[in-house]
Amino acid sequence: MTDDPPFSPALLPAGFVDLLTPDARTEAEGVATLMRVFASHGYDRVRPPLMEFEETLLAGSGATLADQSFRVMDPDTRKMMVLRPDITPQIARMAATRLGAAPRPLRVSYSGACVVVMPAAAEESGRQIMQAGIELIGPDSPQADAEVMSVGAEALAQLGVPEVSFDLTMPPLVPALLEEASISPSVRPVLMRALDRKDAAAVAELGGSLSETLIALLRAAGPAEQALDQLAHISLPPRARAFSERLAATVAAVRKTAPALRLTVDPVEFRGWKYHTGVCVTVFAVGRAEELGRGGRYLSSDNEPACGLTFRPDVLFRTIPPAQPCPRVYLAPDADAQVAARLRAEGHATLAALSSTPHAAGPEQNRAEAQRLGCSHILSGATCTKLD
Amino acid sequence: MTDDPPFSPALLPAGFVDLLTPDARTEAEGVATLMRVFASHGYDRVRPPLMEFEETLLAGSGATLADQSFRVMDPDTRKMMVLRPDITPQIARMAATRLGAAPRPLRVSYSGACVVVMPAAAEESGRQIMQAGIELIGPDSPQADAEVMSVGAEALAQLGVPEVSFDLTMPPLVPALLEEASISPSVRPVLMRALDRKDAAAVAELGGSLSETLIALLRAAGPAEQALDQLAHISLPPRARAFSERLAATVAAVRKTAPALRLTVDPVEFRGWKYHTGVCVTVFAVGRAEELGRGGRYLSSDNEPACGLTFRPDVLFRTIPPAQPCPRVYLAPDADAQVAARLRAEGHATLAALSSTPHAAGPEQNRAEAQRLGCSHILSGATCTKLD
Repeated sequence: MTDDPPFSPALLPAGFVDLLTPDARTEAEGVATLMRVFASHGYDRVRPPLMEFEETLLAGSGATLADQSFRVMDPDTRKMMVLRPDITPQIARMAATRLGAAPRPLRVSYSGACVVVMPAAAEESGRQIMQAGIELIGPDSPQADAEVMSVGAEALAQLGVPEVSFDLTMPPLVPALLEEASISPSVRPVLMRALDRKDAAAVAELGGSLSETLIALLRAAGPAEQALDQLAHISLPPRARAFSERLAATVAAVRKTAPALRLTVDPVEFRGWKYHTGVCVTVFAVGRAEELGRGGRYLSSDNEPACGLTFRPDVLFRTIPPAQPCPRVYLAPDADAQVAARLRAEGHATLAALSSTPHAAGPEQNRAEAQRLGCSHILSGATCTKLD
Repeated sequence: MTDDPPFSPALLPAGFVDLLTPDARTEAEGVATLMRVFASHGYDRVRPPLMEFEETLLAGSGATLADQSFRVMDPDTRKMMVLRPDITPQIARMAATRLGAAPRPLRVSYSGACVVVMPAAAEESGRQIMQAGIELIGPDSPQADAEVMSVGAEALAQLGVPEVSFDLTMPPLVPALLEEASISPSVRPVLMRALDRKDAAAVAELGGSLSETLIALLRAAGPAEQALDQLAHISLPPRARAFSERLAATVAAVRKTAPALRLTVDPVEFRGWKYHTGVCVTVFAVGRAEELGRGGRYLSSDNEPACGLTFRPDVLFRTIPPAQPCPRVYLAPDADAQVAARLRAEGHATLAALSSTPHAAGPEQNRAEAQRLGCSHILSGATCTKLD
């Protein structure tokens, strides 16, 4: 290996990687599979750009992304542009502008790369983030929430992701409850952090008259039907009750199309949900820590109801078998061009000899060259032979 | 349209666009077709990242891209990172590092988005540039040059791009000739600009003893065989002669695999070719001004011979018919789920009614809803009906 160039540990910035074959193919083919399933349910593909003006991309629900975004100045307008850290705010912008007059429900799908300044703690997978997802804009109903999750589950099944879990939560439930119970605004954030940490002792101490209810909510987490059964027995004031019933109705609607899907419910989980107004979901592969995707209900531009789900193909492709390699056929200098074309049409990769003298190399040299290039077959004349 | 939000003319920075369906699909499916053809000839897919350190990406042949690149600081290392303006220098980096020990010829393919600070004059299509291409690294022969062009031509044919022209040039020929003829270094750039402008009067004036040869070279441009025939009759000193013969040998090698391809030759054209060391090609659709792609021979990292061709899918998709829409089927609330799944498997897009009350809507309401959503069919129970 004396010809290798000196290795530089700083060759790529942290969080950016080169993918080679088969990983690059696995990812690209995985995205194609996701997009095909999305399209089959009427989700029309859009492709927003990599960069936008800061004032449009980070407006509205995009504001929470401000500290995650690389900015550069547009030399033309002298305005700041943002390298997108997320595609969803772009879809919200499109839904309110070019797609503002399109009929509702508006179903759109998208895929592409995003860049974040620093990866979130849970996402080891880097600063270049791949996204592929759907947004269902217009309706606000359990059926709409359920459609997004069912289509997502079908896409993962088509990809062959083994044993996924859709973990549901309802981030606005606890804030509504604390407000309705007149918990002091200064106590609320502390109490919510305690709930998020599942710290029952702190919840009991800070919860005042709500302590018993909050501890019961803390415990109503687990497999969906079991958690919802516990939740139904907790006495809640009207707005919190409505959120709890909406969660139950969404689970029931998911069950109609995906009866065997592994669903969990945790009504007090709200880590990472910043601008969401209804049911949210995090998708995991059982036994793996990294999220495969996440989504939920929010208000799009102009407060239009919307629900979306975004997968992370760069994480997904590590949970599925690598793309099958094409059988490689070495084309000897005398290989028949029509037979080679037929082999390609049948799914082979053909690697041509790059020689100007068709008959210079003997059969032994051709075999050696084929083996050196990782070919399993050799085509000489019209005859394709398997190498030993 | 009173509900439309106010339109902002500055919604997106100049040179960045939103693609909708069908354009977004046409582009994505076009890229998939290109990549499939590349893979069928043994070009293994790689996926380098969107950003790299300036000192690696803009090293070597990447240096010519410095003024086209957006830079941001990596808050981690405080080093400057570059948003890639081109993928080829990334492939050169990979070929010398992680793929340094891979057998040669090394065939790799790639696709992805790039961003340039300002579009080149000829490229109206914006600052976000899509690329899909191949690199053949290791061999330096007419057969290698020809393989890259033939594979590119096959990919365009598969895409259905009508009437393409591969316009060949040999950028190092004229500089070698001027050097061999001892034209003064101060005159050379002026003379080269005159040649590039096809300004025969200025060439005659500045060319000194070379005037006649240079005017003859100027005129030896046009359909490949005709231009090469003229070129063969021009008396050239040894190095210039070798370049001219290599151009002829490359055309002959292309003809073996692509006898009907429209090829032109212009031996004095070198606009836009900065670091190239051999045959270069620009691909056009006949009658359109925008380039579909370009490529040529250069020295990769560590001076390893390489030849590549990069297409611009964002330009290509405007030359081909839009992706065929899937027939859209509205699923009435009582639609049979298994029939709907079968319709999707057969290539239909199904749009589900988002209602919790399966029998609330009558047939007339369902038809009206299907039409509003642009569906051509409606599925009620197990019966799929075409709308009038």
